Amino acid sequence: MRIIRSIRVLQVWRRKYATQRIGFVPTMGALHEGHLSLIRRARKHCSTVVVSIFVNPLQFSPSEDLSRYPRPVKSDQQLCREAGVDVLFCPSSEEFYPKDFQTTVKVNRLSQSWEGTFRPTHFEGVTTVVTKLLCLVRPNRSYFGQKDYQQLLVIKHMVKDLNIDTKIVRCSTIRESDGLALSSRNRYLSENQRRQAISLSVALRQGVQSIKHGQTNVQMIQNSMQKILEKFSGVRIEYLAVCDANTLSTLPRVKGEVVLVGAIQIGKVRLIDNMLAKGP
Amino acid sequence: MRIIRSIRVLQVWRRKYATQRIGFVPTMGALHEGHLSLIRRARKHCSTVVVSIFVNPLQFSPSEDLSRYPRPVKSDQQLCREAGVDVLFCPSSEEFYPKDFQTTVKVNRLSQSWEGTFRPTHFEGVTTVVTKLLCLVRPNRSYFGQKDYQQLLVIKHMVKDLNIDTKIVRCSTIRESDGLALSSRNRYLSENQRRQAISLSVALRQGVQSIKHGQTNVQMIQNSMQKILEKFSGVRIEYLAVCDANTLSTLPRVKGEVVLVGAIQIGKVRLIDNMLAKGP
Repeated sequence: MRIIRSIRVLQVWRRKYATQRIGFVPTMGALHEGHLSLIRRARKHCSTVVVSIFVNPLQFSPSEDLSRYPRPVKSDQQLCREAGVDVLFCPSSEEFYPKDFQTTVKVNRLSQSWEGTFRPTHFEGVTTVVTKLLCLVRPNRSYFGQKDYQQLLVIKHMVKDLNIDTKIVRCSTIRESDGLALSSRNRYLSENQRRQAISLSVALRQGVQSIKHGQTNVQMIQNSMQKILEKFSGVRIEYLAVCDANTLSTLPRVKGEVVLVGAIQIGKVRLIDNMLAKGP
Repeated sequence: MRIIRSIRVLQVWRRKYATQRIGFVPTMGALHEGHLSLIRRARKHCSTVVVSIFVNPLQFSPSEDLSRYPRPVKSDQQLCREAGVDVLFCPSSEEFYPKDFQTTVKVNRLSQSWEGTFRPTHFEGVTTVVTKLLCLVRPNRSYFGQKDYQQLLVIKHMVKDLNIDTKIVRCSTIRESDGLALSSRNRYLSENQRRQAISLSVALRQGVQSIKHGQTNVQMIQNSMQKILEKFSGVRIEYLAVCDANTLSTLPRVKGEVVLVGAIQIGKVRLIDNMLAKGP
């Protein structure tokens, strides 16, 4: 596995691989089974696999956890090596965002709801960094986890709008045996918080079940999910909703493909999750 | 010469040319000797030359000349054919900006001054369309005229910020024998307005001359250029300035490479021009 830290070196490398089928997994490191499932999928379908590890300052607000975000550099490298990654790209913030950096890529409507309400500049940071990475790596396929569902939609839309020639591959959320969606932020949870953290997936799963059993009244579904969450102590709901799986707009009744999305806070830890369901 | 009108077809074409050295000249059509000089330069240095013709609605404000912008389709095609263009890309607005299009690329600081003051959403439209075109064509080299100097700087900065792997080549402004910079908008000028239109290049040239002769006081240079323009009737100055050639920020004294920029209105026609000069 080659570790590349400089933009210039990556560009030179990329030009030599003009005709390869490149699979790309952009990450912020602190790799877990979720990331590894993306890497394995890329490994299976592509001749060359590039993983990037870059804790992107642009997508954190000043009040968020940028400085304490986990950075287990050595074990991340080891995991990539074991997973058969060809190139691990780890740029520095200084080179990635030089002092005169001033360009922003924004997906205007899709970025506004849900996560966008609670993290107003988050997606702008995500779409800017992903555009940069896609321009650098120019992958045939790019792998994103369903776990960050709105991010996946925003990036898909951006790639379509900007005519970036890469296929966005959605990979299923990987969960602990009790249902908690894997996230690098789970390691912030205390033992007690960890027990409360399953609440979100329990509620969402209950919502999916009721849709399977024919419930189409969104308000009813949301209320029953909310009741489940309220049974857990120390859990604060940021949002919890059933919405259109493509536009993320709210619906009065379940129809076609929907996504159940939720965000909660447990102490200082913020967790998000989602599940897809099909209505009549 | 192949004429491609669909994004999909261009993408398929591009993949087949993975190892070619592609030169790209993005235009809004109404081609003149200025555009042709860019195409010739691309023809000289690249194995494959792509020209795009697309009157980009995003870069016009509602009060501007989008609908009356000249579109001499047949003669543009003929000029491209004669200049040895390989691919002429002419997308439709409908395909380029579908109804759910919502992504914006913005170069925040450089876009604000000069043209940005008079056309606040202009550069956002330019950078968004150019990002799309560069993602589609993926050229090794992209050719832009010095005539739109701020646009050139904005695009150069965007390409650097987003790590788009293309070299931006600056090509000199082409002028009529009396000094008027070529522009597709010159054809809006009446015979009388055409006579007034040389005022801007006369003033700028005078500014350059005075710098050559050792004048470094920017205010003095600007005043003398302004006096020249005031001698012409029906000419309204929008801006006229000596500024840093890289940052476009104003300077108290000429130092290093500077650019003299100006914009005027003659009736309903808006003209811009610029000249470079070197201070002590």
